[in-house]
Amino acid sequence: MSTAARIDAAVTAAIRAGQRGTTPPKLAAALEYAVTPGGARIRPTILVSVARACGDDRPELTDAAAAALELIHCASLVHDDLPMFDDADTRRGKPSVHRAFSQPLALLCGDSLIVMGFEVLAQAGINDPARALGLISVLGRRTGMPGGICAGQGWESEDDIDLSAYHQSKTGALFIAATQMGAIAAGQEAEPWEELGARIGEAFQVADDLRDALCDEGELGKPAGQDDLHGRPNAVTLLGVRGAVGRLDDILAGAISSIPACPGEAGLAQMVRAYADRLVPAAARAKLTVPGE
Amino acid sequence: MSTAARIDAAVTAAIRAGQRGTTPPKLAAALEYAVTPGGARIRPTILVSVARACGDDRPELTDAAAAALELIHCASLVHDDLPMFDDADTRRGKPSVHRAFSQPLALLCGDSLIVMGFEVLAQAGINDPARALGLISVLGRRTGMPGGICAGQGWESEDDIDLSAYHQSKTGALFIAATQMGAIAAGQEAEPWEELGARIGEAFQVADDLRDALCDEGELGKPAGQDDLHGRPNAVTLLGVRGAVGRLDDILAGAISSIPACPGEAGLAQMVRAYADRLVPAAARAKLTVPGE
Repeated sequence: MSTAARIDAAVTAAIRAGQRGTTPPKLAAALEYAVTPGGARIRPTILVSVARACGDDRPELTDAAAAALELIHCASLVHDDLPMFDDADTRRGKPSVHRAFSQPLALLCGDSLIVMGFEVLAQAGINDPARALGLISVLGRRTGMPGGICAGQGWESEDDIDLSAYHQSKTGALFIAATQMGAIAAGQEAEPWEELGARIGEAFQVADDLRDALCDEGELGKPAGQDDLHGRPNAVTLLGVRGAVGRLDDILAGAISSIPACPGEAGLAQMVRAYADRLVPAAARAKLTVPGE
Repeated sequence: MSTAARIDAAVTAAIRAGQRGTTPPKLAAALEYAVTPGGARIRPTILVSVARACGDDRPELTDAAAAALELIHCASLVHDDLPMFDDADTRRGKPSVHRAFSQPLALLCGDSLIVMGFEVLAQAGINDPARALGLISVLGRRTGMPGGICAGQGWESEDDIDLSAYHQSKTGALFIAATQMGAIAAGQEAEPWEELGARIGEAFQVADDLRDALCDEGELGKPAGQDDLHGRPNAVTLLGVRGAVGRLDDILAGAISSIPACPGEAGLAQMVRAYADRLVPAAARAKLTVPGE
């Protein structure tokens, strides 16, 4: 089965389990709405790629880990889109969850997806509880406080932002979770895989900054210019378009050289290179041909 | 150490871990604010009581389970108090989290406390991963969808409410988690402990209905008359005060007779009886002396 099909099947199975029996129908529908269309599913794809590079000897754990990570990511999008944060009307080219349902249902949908992420791992772990606990531990660390995506979002309520902590927790955390959970699912140590995740996260942040600054709402599937609007730090403001693209290339080179020795090392390096091409938006490449930009 | 002191130490340790290192200071403070003052901590107290009745052979797991359950309960209070739900200005006699901090910080605080609940269990499970996974599984099931407290709150967005599913998930779920997690932490099967939790949950719901209908904001530490205001079903409206108190006594008798055979069976029955006295608010007992009420 392809990586995309594995992830899709695992996410769908988790959502179905959350809809079983007598449930409040709107909230049950919101769960499914929040995870579709799947889009690139870049975090679980990295996770499965790392697990495969490490042998993938417990595919049921890899699948659960990929689903769990995607569920947490989707939960964060649903909560971040709420009026109290980004007030985004659209996401992935359709109305955001609170616009399609309501604010209460969007909040509960996010809460339920967070819980589901941990539940999926607990249930898949029957044959290897120790690995499952390791996965739950890493997912928790990269999701909550003090260093997960909740902390990242929390920095936006501060007057003095620690920029390094902000970026590492807001964007880096779930990429580190992706590489480390891939390794753990396949029975490897988590620690050597932190740098790869952190660097992919940095690259993703710079690419996201480029897209936010240069693309319009139609291309993004969500409102553009949000960083500027919310006064958030953005690499394009700091370095210009050319500088930001150069920084992206540097980070990805560092990412590739950080890949720990493993059977699938070469394939992983290729995956990171493929992302490099996809990450830089066409609008940014086009801008680079304009002299003086 | 007393049960109350154990629970307090475990909750405090979890919060401290969530505040470690470079964190956004307001969110870090909100975590602590949300779990203090502790109040009766009735759910974790039941959990520890059941674990003790079953031998409590892995106290570190019992402590983690008690903390996890309390963190999830506090998270639900923080989210439920938000303007999009109950719009409660006060909780436990002080401003609710979103009033003391902000709505974004209250939402993130709730999210972080949910994550922390699962993380605490993963970290305490090193010496017994199988039991820890069981605890995580039960906590997830009673928190999220399809049958946990998220589902319970989700029913309030429906026009046609399934009352049985509503009550069981909204209030019963975390009491079932309490009895089952207490049993699992001490190495026992979860299933025989479901009924005790469900019945304590029913009793608590009726008692809460009595308090909501009869007490004022000063006694409650939160706004009174909320069920009436939000059109929620309430046992006092249905049965009258005398009927509701009678129902409470019946439920608690059923609870006691459902206690599975275990070394501490007698002590547990005593605990349930003690709660029965505490649960019925003085205002309700007073009303019972008024003829015709």
